[in-house]
Amino acid sequence: MRTLSERDRKAEGGSLSGRTSRRRVLRVTLPGGGQPGGSAPRADFLAGEEPLGIRVNGTALTVTMRTPGDDLELAAGFLVSEAVIGSPADIAEIKLCDGTACGHSDHSGMGNIADVTLAAGVAVTPGAQRNFMTTSACGVCGKTSIEDICVLPHASLAADTTRFAADMLAALPGRLRDAQRVFSRTGGLHAAGLFTAEGELIVVREDVGRHNAVDKVVGWALLGGRLPLAGCVLLVSGRASFELVQKAVLAGIPLLAAVSAPSSLAVDLAGQAGLTLVGFLRGPSMNVYTGARRLSGCSS
Amino acid sequence: MRTLSERDRKAEGGSLSGRTSRRRVLRVTLPGGGQPGGSAPRADFLAGEEPLGIRVNGTALTVTMRTPGDDLELAAGFLVSEAVIGSPADIAEIKLCDGTACGHSDHSGMGNIADVTLAAGVAVTPGAQRNFMTTSACGVCGKTSIEDICVLPHASLAADTTRFAADMLAALPGRLRDAQRVFSRTGGLHAAGLFTAEGELIVVREDVGRHNAVDKVVGWALLGGRLPLAGCVLLVSGRASFELVQKAVLAGIPLLAAVSAPSSLAVDLAGQAGLTLVGFLRGPSMNVYTGARRLSGCSS
Repeated sequence: MRTLSERDRKAEGGSLSGRTSRRRVLRVTLPGGGQPGGSAPRADFLAGEEPLGIRVNGTALTVTMRTPGDDLELAAGFLVSEAVIGSPADIAEIKLCDGTACGHSDHSGMGNIADVTLAAGVAVTPGAQRNFMTTSACGVCGKTSIEDICVLPHASLAADTTRFAADMLAALPGRLRDAQRVFSRTGGLHAAGLFTAEGELIVVREDVGRHNAVDKVVGWALLGGRLPLAGCVLLVSGRASFELVQKAVLAGIPLLAAVSAPSSLAVDLAGQAGLTLVGFLRGPSMNVYTGARRLSGCSS
Repeated sequence: MRTLSERDRKAEGGSLSGRTSRRRVLRVTLPGGGQPGGSAPRADFLAGEEPLGIRVNGTALTVTMRTPGDDLELAAGFLVSEAVIGSPADIAEIKLCDGTACGHSDHSGMGNIADVTLAAGVAVTPGAQRNFMTTSACGVCGKTSIEDICVLPHASLAADTTRFAADMLAALPGRLRDAQRVFSRTGGLHAAGLFTAEGELIVVREDVGRHNAVDKVVGWALLGGRLPLAGCVLLVSGRASFELVQKAVLAGIPLLAAVSAPSSLAVDLAGQAGLTLVGFLRGPSMNVYTGARRLSGCSS
């Protein structure tokens, strides 16, 4: 697998400045509590949001609105989450588009396309395509909606017998917040943090889209040859959707924890796939929706 | 425009039960504050999440993971947000798929496809398609990313001179929360509320996806012949992304307010389109990112 060329590195470095963006804002405060209220202009840092196109073997696959940075990880993680790839060997080359490659000479939006060449024998399967492009008129009105849209009918985490202590889990949201470099500045980013079973932070990624934050973590793991992520915990700052459960399962993560609520389909898929799903992980308490057998230190 | 048949109404009514879903959960509390801690099973209500396929003139256009309910509004609002339609007259017929229409006899996932037939002369334009399906390899690496992905290059809200009082805006988050029927039960849904310039709630919709909640509001307005929504405020419970700004502008809404942060691209697009964008609308204060001319009662 070939990853960044020198030119690509520059392109990615250039987009780092897009992680946050400074704008002028009018701060308005109403009168109250003995204060007169009023308004004043001030500078505010915003979470960056720009489109990233993901191209595979020369064909545009999808466009995602993301916070610039870690774009190759995002593209790689997206392809893992769509069950297109599962190891670094599945990628022949991955780079950011530098404009000249696509035959256009006037592109200054360099770095907003991730260009992936798959290894020989690896292809975008129809099953994977279902999630980002509907090719069948009746692809989702069958009786088992999970099976119809899910790209992991046979994946299972049952073999991962790691146990996780409840008090270790309770400490993770604080560690994730501490690690969020951008959030403290903008208040506008979702975070996904990967931890060991002992609660040590392995990697954290942020994005305006929670799915992108998770794809960046998974892509980081893939590019470093770390998949599957057996024995790890993935913590997300918001809610747990079906999509996030699918991403965790495809990355081989046995425990997904969310600060907020899961959806019904997230719980159903987690149950089918053998994932431990924890929600409302706040303060000293949490809800365990599936796979409680992996938790320790919480017997009543 | 023909909307629901009797059979469709039954199908939609049937999916209402999917708005929330009851699951068994293990509630874990750590020892602390003199309490011993422990775990106990209990019932928990989750936000429903199921796929909805949107089909236009017999061709599958997209699949969105949504909370069941108001599905025709969601489909209609999605098509407004993609600049495919702008008035009820643009729709010849809109209904939920009842299985038989697609020639399959074994479908019990009835109601998970919204089937839209456009009026003669109305078509899915290439510009609209760009957002849900990438048709060009270089569609997003041009120098002006907003223009490349935006479906509203010429839309403008400049003609809407409505003024909004700052204290009226400050009262809206409380009204939105009061109106959220599902949220109080599940803690897992985004909400979008449409208000008059005087702060009266017109309609509220909820969904696991914030974009869906907004599409449901816009679709409700379209199907009722209420577009454009001049003089109105749209409040969203979370963050304001580029996508939400685009939806507000296409619906003709002059003021978009968010409880949390906007992204950089949201602010840029709002500025270009003449939308007033308010963020961090919490307690007695707010940030006005663009279009402050529409605010009153906040001079310092």
